[in-house]
Amino acid sequence: MSDSSPPLAGVTIVDLGRVLAAPFCTSVLAHMGARVIKVERPGTGDDSRAYGPFKGGSSIYFACVNCDKESIALDLKRPEDRTIFESMLDRADVLVENFSPGVMERLGYGWDALHARWPKLIVGALSGFGQHGPMSGKPAYDIIVQALGGLMSLTGHPGGPPTRVGASVGDLVAGLYLALGISNALYRRTRTGEGCMIDVAMLDCQIAFLEAAIASCSATGHVPGPLGTRHPSIAPFQAFATADSPIVIGAGNDTLFRTLCSAIGRDELATDERFASNSSRFAHVDDLQREIERTLRTRPAAHWLAALDAAAVPSAPIQNVAQAMSMPQAQARAMVLPVECPSIGTFKVPGNPVKISDVPERGMRKPPPALDADRERILAELVTSPRMHPTH
Amino acid sequence: MSDSSPPLAGVTIVDLGRVLAAPFCTSVLAHMGARVIKVERPGTGDDSRAYGPFKGGSSIYFACVNCDKESIALDLKRPEDRTIFESMLDRADVLVENFSPGVMERLGYGWDALHARWPKLIVGALSGFGQHGPMSGKPAYDIIVQALGGLMSLTGHPGGPPTRVGASVGDLVAGLYLALGISNALYRRTRTGEGCMIDVAMLDCQIAFLEAAIASCSATGHVPGPLGTRHPSIAPFQAFATADSPIVIGAGNDTLFRTLCSAIGRDELATDERFASNSSRFAHVDDLQREIERTLRTRPAAHWLAALDAAAVPSAPIQNVAQAMSMPQAQARAMVLPVECPSIGTFKVPGNPVKISDVPERGMRKPPPALDADRERILAELVTSPRMHPTH
Repeated sequence: MSDSSPPLAGVTIVDLGRVLAAPFCTSVLAHMGARVIKVERPGTGDDSRAYGPFKGGSSIYFACVNCDKESIALDLKRPEDRTIFESMLDRADVLVENFSPGVMERLGYGWDALHARWPKLIVGALSGFGQHGPMSGKPAYDIIVQALGGLMSLTGHPGGPPTRVGASVGDLVAGLYLALGISNALYRRTRTGEGCMIDVAMLDCQIAFLEAAIASCSATGHVPGPLGTRHPSIAPFQAFATADSPIVIGAGNDTLFRTLCSAIGRDELATDERFASNSSRFAHVDDLQREIERTLRTRPAAHWLAALDAAAVPSAPIQNVAQAMSMPQAQARAMVLPVECPSIGTFKVPGNPVKISDVPERGMRKPPPALDADRERILAELVTSPRMHPTH
Repeated sequence: MSDSSPPLAGVTIVDLGRVLAAPFCTSVLAHMGARVIKVERPGTGDDSRAYGPFKGGSSIYFACVNCDKESIALDLKRPEDRTIFESMLDRADVLVENFSPGVMERLGYGWDALHARWPKLIVGALSGFGQHGPMSGKPAYDIIVQALGGLMSLTGHPGGPPTRVGASVGDLVAGLYLALGISNALYRRTRTGEGCMIDVAMLDCQIAFLEAAIASCSATGHVPGPLGTRHPSIAPFQAFATADSPIVIGAGNDTLFRTLCSAIGRDELATDERFASNSSRFAHVDDLQREIERTLRTRPAAHWLAALDAAAVPSAPIQNVAQAMSMPQAQARAMVLPVECPSIGTFKVPGNPVKISDVPERGMRKPPPALDADRERILAELVTSPRMHPTH
């Protein structure tokens, strides 16, 4: 019974997703083996085809999260295009969308209507604030939910200007939660025989990622703020200056702290009563930083990283994107994959971080589709392939 | 055939996870309905039981990601405890661990051994750098992978000090990818009849979250840096000063930009050729910020948020954790749930952001277990409940 096919082999996803959150979700599911058919607006397609940077006339932004997908352009207000769309749903396992709540209902494709006609269909809906509640329907972008959800209040330096997380975690975390929900719904369908609707809100996902900050704030009444590079519970766990560029060090227990002190030639810090336990180090974290930096500032980062590495103390340089991409470890893990694109040329995208024992690693990804590129093949298939919703 | 049970009802997870990444993964899977049995070291248990802040003698940090779980203390080097552990695996669907690579092999529980004896068992392994590659085996904490993986290089202000993302996204994103991998492996098992091993590395997940930054860097050669609160492709999409506290505004297309200009009484900006398209706004983003702030600085944040909200321009205050928790929208979505804990008292934790159409929302979560709290019941069940690996 064993095979080496990826987990979602045989799963077909019809994808109405636009811009980032939902396209990221279906990109993740494509990595897991699903077939993803993008349904785009005729003429302009996905909004993000117009987002820079551009190369060879194509959007790199769009290209990144739309590899390994097919494209068909349909106007869901035109009867003949609706017929095609519905014929696609006859053969689909999953429908993904990130319109504002209410749009699918106005198109006649709200959950109740979809479920009545396609009872096995799983619907994944992603929105800024969710399908219900007083803010449902309000527009959102990544920075809106980073700001409302509390993450920006924890990021940056005390007293400093507001700081956004430099990746679109408002979109990406929501996309990942929706991919999780859809995967769970597929598993559930093997038991119940029925589809369900998964409703994921970007704001909810930001709140989920506050984890200990919520527990701590509610239990102690202390409202946490930004800590620069420091951890809210562990010390030392932050960036330190050296003679040249800063490095980060994390020592999450007393043994690692003693090893750190030894590795930088400051054994006396390990017996200093201010630094005797994680709690006391955390209470004297300014003193601790001053003492450690007094030594680290005498030699360059490379010296200290080698010493700490030899002692197995968790430490690292702060790498830029080009450095992260070219790490031998990232290469060994197939985490940066080439894409050969007719318009952009060769570029690179992240690989799949979910490694599965008996599923071979893919060496590259298929380039993003031109708008409507797969129309003829998709239409031909609708004639020949079986429906998967026998009650219809 | 329809039922309202959560997707992972009936799934049993034996959880060797410690501290944050793996416990967060199993917390997410518990939200989806799985039974999670924590196997902890006798005496001290999970390291994070010793991480502050504390209340009533218990760690709030530990409490947050270990709700809804059971606990049994086992020493996997003692023969009698190994017998109990193996009897638990006879009845388990999933084993999760985040030891350093090699530890499970030394315990005699490497993947090959596990798969030979428990062919249906799914194993989820989470580590800093993964089960192979030149850095496999090196220790990591959240800040190490945030630094190596490029995320810190994108977070903060140009020319400013290094800045860590204020949530432990190094751990949490990896935990979420592992939850996704396990969910996919459960679905795959319904087809193949066999388990598999899912290997997730924190570093890989950080690279996956760089998305467009990798594509852009590889296609254009431009290495991106930190942008404060700005977006790398869209303008306006950042924080702006007002007469009192800053607010964020995101206007991702020309229509929204025109609406924004009108809402703040600056219609002339919409016809200024510097700001005619997203590309030109992005090229003149300093000018754009200056012009918008010249107006916003004349009135307080509350005034502008009301005006922008009335015009449906995406905008928000930068909320702290207490403000985020108390939002009516967060309450309406059950995103902040109470926990009644014998030691800590009542506190709050994030709810489940995956909302499923026919699965009722839970109103609260079960408190985290005391160390070894469920031993007697678990041992009694091992006598009475059937094995799920008939080949053993």
